[in-house]
Amino acid sequence: MNKKYIYSVFLGLLLATPLKAQQALFNSNQVSSPVINDDNTVTFNIYAPKASKVEVTGDFLASQKVQTPFGLQDVPGVAELKEGKGGIWSLTTGKLGPELYSYSFKVNDMPMLDPANVYINRDVASTMNIFIVSERKGDQGDLYRVNEVPHGNVAKVWYDSPTLKMKRRMTVYTPAGYEKGRNYPVLYLLHGAGGDEDAWTTLGRAAQILDNLIASGKAKPMIVVMPNGNMDCQAAPGEWSRGMYTPSFMASVDFKSKPVATMDESFPDIIKYIESNYKVAKGQMNRAVCGLSMGGGHTFAISKRYPKEFGYIGLFSAGLSIGRNAVKESFYDQLKKDKKVQGQLASLFAAHPKLYWIGIGKTDFLYQQNADLRKFLDEKGYKYTYMETEGGHIWRNWRVYLTTFAQKIFK
Amino acid sequence: MNKKYIYSVFLGLLLATPLKAQQALFNSNQVSSPVINDDNTVTFNIYAPKASKVEVTGDFLASQKVQTPFGLQDVPGVAELKEGKGGIWSLTTGKLGPELYSYSFKVNDMPMLDPANVYINRDVASTMNIFIVSERKGDQGDLYRVNEVPHGNVAKVWYDSPTLKMKRRMTVYTPAGYEKGRNYPVLYLLHGAGGDEDAWTTLGRAAQILDNLIASGKAKPMIVVMPNGNMDCQAAPGEWSRGMYTPSFMASVDFKSKPVATMDESFPDIIKYIESNYKVAKGQMNRAVCGLSMGGGHTFAISKRYPKEFGYIGLFSAGLSIGRNAVKESFYDQLKKDKKVQGQLASLFAAHPKLYWIGIGKTDFLYQQNADLRKFLDEKGYKYTYMETEGGHIWRNWRVYLTTFAQKIFK
Repeated sequence: MNKKYIYSVFLGLLLATPLKAQQALFNSNQVSSPVINDDNTVTFNIYAPKASKVEVTGDFLASQKVQTPFGLQDVPGVAELKEGKGGIWSLTTGKLGPELYSYSFKVNDMPMLDPANVYINRDVASTMNIFIVSERKGDQGDLYRVNEVPHGNVAKVWYDSPTLKMKRRMTVYTPAGYEKGRNYPVLYLLHGAGGDEDAWTTLGRAAQILDNLIASGKAKPMIVVMPNGNMDCQAAPGEWSRGMYTPSFMASVDFKSKPVATMDESFPDIIKYIESNYKVAKGQMNRAVCGLSMGGGHTFAISKRYPKEFGYIGLFSAGLSIGRNAVKESFYDQLKKDKKVQGQLASLFAAHPKLYWIGIGKTDFLYQQNADLRKFLDEKGYKYTYMETEGGHIWRNWRVYLTTFAQKIFK
Repeated sequence: MNKKYIYSVFLGLLLATPLKAQQALFNSNQVSSPVINDDNTVTFNIYAPKASKVEVTGDFLASQKVQTPFGLQDVPGVAELKEGKGGIWSLTTGKLGPELYSYSFKVNDMPMLDPANVYINRDVASTMNIFIVSERKGDQGDLYRVNEVPHGNVAKVWYDSPTLKMKRRMTVYTPAGYEKGRNYPVLYLLHGAGGDEDAWTTLGRAAQILDNLIASGKAKPMIVVMPNGNMDCQAAPGEWSRGMYTPSFMASVDFKSKPVATMDESFPDIIKYIESNYKVAKGQMNRAVCGLSMGGGHTFAISKRYPKEFGYIGLFSAGLSIGRNAVKESFYDQLKKDKKVQGQLASLFAAHPKLYWIGIGKTDFLYQQNADLRKFLDEKGYKYTYMETEGGHIWRNWRVYLTTFAQKIFK
């Protein structure tokens, strides 16, 4: 087609386009946002005529202490935008370090997304816009970017779980070159409460992290399997027959149908599907499992239930519990009392996993549980690797933990 | 984990959660929206304190004629919400027919998404919330739902295009049972200007349509390949190394890099990848190609360039052009003058494709081009099937065309 014709079709398309999209193209109210400036300051712009207050909140701002019904808590900071010409409100941040950031606006106290930014992540029931800042090749922002490197494929795959008596959906990353390769090791990567099989590829940037680490030779080519850890869900919200429900932290409680098995009980269904349908290297030293928060708890449970199956185990801000008195008793006390779990952990460490990795943020509300686990492991002389970071129970940490863990496995 | 512990972790997670998500869980300002009522009316709710006007726009409203710089045009209707208690504005629609609907709000003239609805589609640079209404099993709304039927897998796949000198991303749907099956026919399903390899699985609900049609025996199990039709893009916005740019209708013009080949020239790269890496039945009668708008133009070009390769050809609201005087000359006049294209079409119809299908809406701005094509085909005695629907150049029509076309192929 020649160029003139292309433009005539273009005009026609415009006419056939919803008013909102037309405004986006022609209306002088249309703004660019966020604008990442050359000095890595970031400018937010929003057209908000008649507004009396416009704010932005996000993890690029220092968190603040706020009194809540549960005590003094860290919450993301809030900054006010200033009104300029034509109803456009703006704010330019200070220089931001390399990172993937999330934000949303509040206009007259009404929370809303940035209408100029189509890049959106969902975290449980919240939607947030995202942007990435990077200073140089190889920094954490660059690791989260889609770079000009070979890319792995990402598939949403339905598998059969006879244990849970349902078909279930998971996300499978196969590395660049998989079509011609063979015998790939497998990382099982688990999400937290409120998450699902989409979480690690959206909030977690797992495909970008793996693409970039593998391309630079820092991680081995591997398959990454991201199942759904909510035992009475088949899939992410909107992706199974329950319809377009509002997500919540407690997918496995909300539906009031008691799951017929736990994550660790049903985990062999996942391994069986992967090892039957992908070009997989089998055996302990070709399998890794890790997860965040609830998924860290799942990792703890799975690795001790199948002590000879995983060569690499990663607990990211893990939610840990084994006993019936979990709320009253410290995790250390639970471990000291539970002979069955002690036996399982003894078997696990007797099988000499190459890596038992624990990562947590200094202000994470699960810090003490993980300190309790370390105390127990230390007493038993079980070897583990520990990483402590700033901050709390946040994706920024989990992306760093995946980046770190992925470089340590299958080597 | 016991239930008490689960709730204690839940509370902890809450504390570690961004303020916005906390509000979503505890704040009395939190509303449900949209609520699909038992009688298939739909109630929109939004917390908009201090607003003086709240409107909703979307394709569930009758379109209205509006004077634009290009003349009188159809645009989606707008309805006002009414303020109730506590800053919550609401509107209940009349009874809606079975369909997937898109909408967004305007608060004090500022366009925004529904903060209570996490289900979002992107159409070029616009984001819109969606909901589905269905009256009974098998209606068009039900066809767009994820039902309790076997599901196909959807993969984002990188392939090599030597013709375009780049790696490119496409979406591949493999039907339920693919792991154990063999010899699947392939439908190549092409998007329009402003779209990309994500469009048919998001706006087009292609995976749901195919899952549901295959489960009910109305369509044959098939692989559906949805490539990217923008010749100087590797992938959808945000999914390749150009970064998080603002999408536009003219991906292939914006980047100012002249594509080295056209869609039809480079199409064999796609077929080669699919037929090398999937369990595919080869040959003309196992290949179908169809597309909407620009993708309908691509379908026209591909099918005549490779006259013996496709048994089923579908033009959905096709953008048609062959000549250098496309803007001045009718498509009929172009066809009548162009001996090369006449020869290609003669070869195509001499190969006896089982189906040459044309669908368009009565008010589509490309109606005349398609009438011109039909006039030419009629004169030549080339057989085709024609479907004319209400409405214009809209996804509602393209989903219906895919539903119709998919039931007619590989039979």
